[in-house]
Amino acid sequence: MMRNLRLLIAYVGTRFAGWQVQPGRPTIQGTLEETLGRMLQETVRLAGAGRTDAGVHARGQVANFPTTSRIPADGLLRGANARLPEDVRILAVDEVDASFHARADALGKEYRYRLFGGGVLSPFDAPFAVAVRGGLEVDEMRRAAERFIGTHDFTSFSASSCRIADRRRTVTRSDIEAHGEFIEYRVRADGFLQHMVRNMAGTLIDVGRGRLRAAAIAGILEARDRRAAGLCAPPQGLVLETVFYEEGA
Amino acid sequence: MMRNLRLLIAYVGTRFAGWQVQPGRPTIQGTLEETLGRMLQETVRLAGAGRTDAGVHARGQVANFPTTSRIPADGLLRGANARLPEDVRILAVDEVDASFHARADALGKEYRYRLFGGGVLSPFDAPFAVAVRGGLEVDEMRRAAERFIGTHDFTSFSASSCRIADRRRTVTRSDIEAHGEFIEYRVRADGFLQHMVRNMAGTLIDVGRGRLRAAAIAGILEARDRRAAGLCAPPQGLVLETVFYEEGA
Repeated sequence: MMRNLRLLIAYVGTRFAGWQVQPGRPTIQGTLEETLGRMLQETVRLAGAGRTDAGVHARGQVANFPTTSRIPADGLLRGANARLPEDVRILAVDEVDASFHARADALGKEYRYRLFGGGVLSPFDAPFAVAVRGGLEVDEMRRAAERFIGTHDFTSFSASSCRIADRRRTVTRSDIEAHGEFIEYRVRADGFLQHMVRNMAGTLIDVGRGRLRAAAIAGILEARDRRAAGLCAPPQGLVLETVFYEEGA
Repeated sequence: MMRNLRLLIAYVGTRFAGWQVQPGRPTIQGTLEETLGRMLQETVRLAGAGRTDAGVHARGQVANFPTTSRIPADGLLRGANARLPEDVRILAVDEVDASFHARADALGKEYRYRLFGGGVLSPFDAPFAVAVRGGLEVDEMRRAAERFIGTHDFTSFSASSCRIADRRRTVTRSDIEAHGEFIEYRVRADGFLQHMVRNMAGTLIDVGRGRLRAAAIAGILEARDRRAAGLCAPPQGLVLETVFYEEGA
């Protein structure tokens, strides 16, 4: 009998070419498929909720795969973690309805982007934060972040190569928190376009540096032009925190 | 005029063969000497307070070096950090008396050893903690840690290759703190023998697993025999936190 298994996954993306399988390059999907395939003695094809870019991290990626294996969820978790490299971990395994699909059924996602506005960035934090020189105007960044809340066309914040026709997305959370010298941007939406969070973070960095005012965000959204927004911020500051599903899914 | 500069240094030791220069292998001392030497256009030889082993981290290593350069301390800090790999950082630079020597003048050091006693160790914590299966008896570990306080001959906890004649050391702090699923061992002493903290941590792991009682520590110390104590715990759990000097030094 075919079972459908759902995985909750965390990874440090530093050395990976991203989530999605690419021939000849280390990817998180590829690493998991190979490890699970060897373990279960069958071909494993994962459907991941979000295709994180090269260098992006995750604390709550979700994926599912069909299997004929009868291995208990708990045994799969322990066996896979014993075989996986230490920068990829399966945090939970559960059996779900045959119709469940990690990407198609996702109601939304939450990402965090971490900035450092202090003096010397500790080597312990460097793989997970982006240092910005000269200090950041946190209050103005906070006002700018708020402007993203609501339903907007995010063309100005999507990769110029983006081929998706409908670029409206609904942002339900978008806020800035300061933790000492670190500044964390959290954003939750029903979906994200390619590079969307990093382009938003890059624009918020411009605001923090005083190059842009919070009031400018509305005009950038209306422009529907990638060139209107800030640069794509580096990947190491970004973490996929949570993927949301209907309760009970 | 010759100046004596003192550095406060942090590093993630994962990819290094330890602090001390070794030909053909990446070391923290070697990386710093090369970077500073290129910057100052002179040969730099650092005296480090502690020779951390391969894979051991530091948040508060101290080193000093003589230089004829007139570069301001602040310029040295910023210039060196811009050139160093991101896993090594100079946190502070100050000019000290010509007689100051980072190792000879150290009054003591504090180390931290981090254990994980939970289910799945996050990939974000894996490079900085050692997972122990099957849970740990924290209260018994706490009682065992206390037994190290005082002046003892630490032969049983030093590398069998140790050639130092006087192996008495005075431990002034030795305690266990639980932070969720993490257990942190902190130990402060006037000096440490090679592998001493890792051998103490390995013995505390034996206590946590119920293989040894806290009351056995006194006998292990008295044995003055490396075979009496537990295994040398892995390097990635260890961090050199602080080196102590006389106030004003």
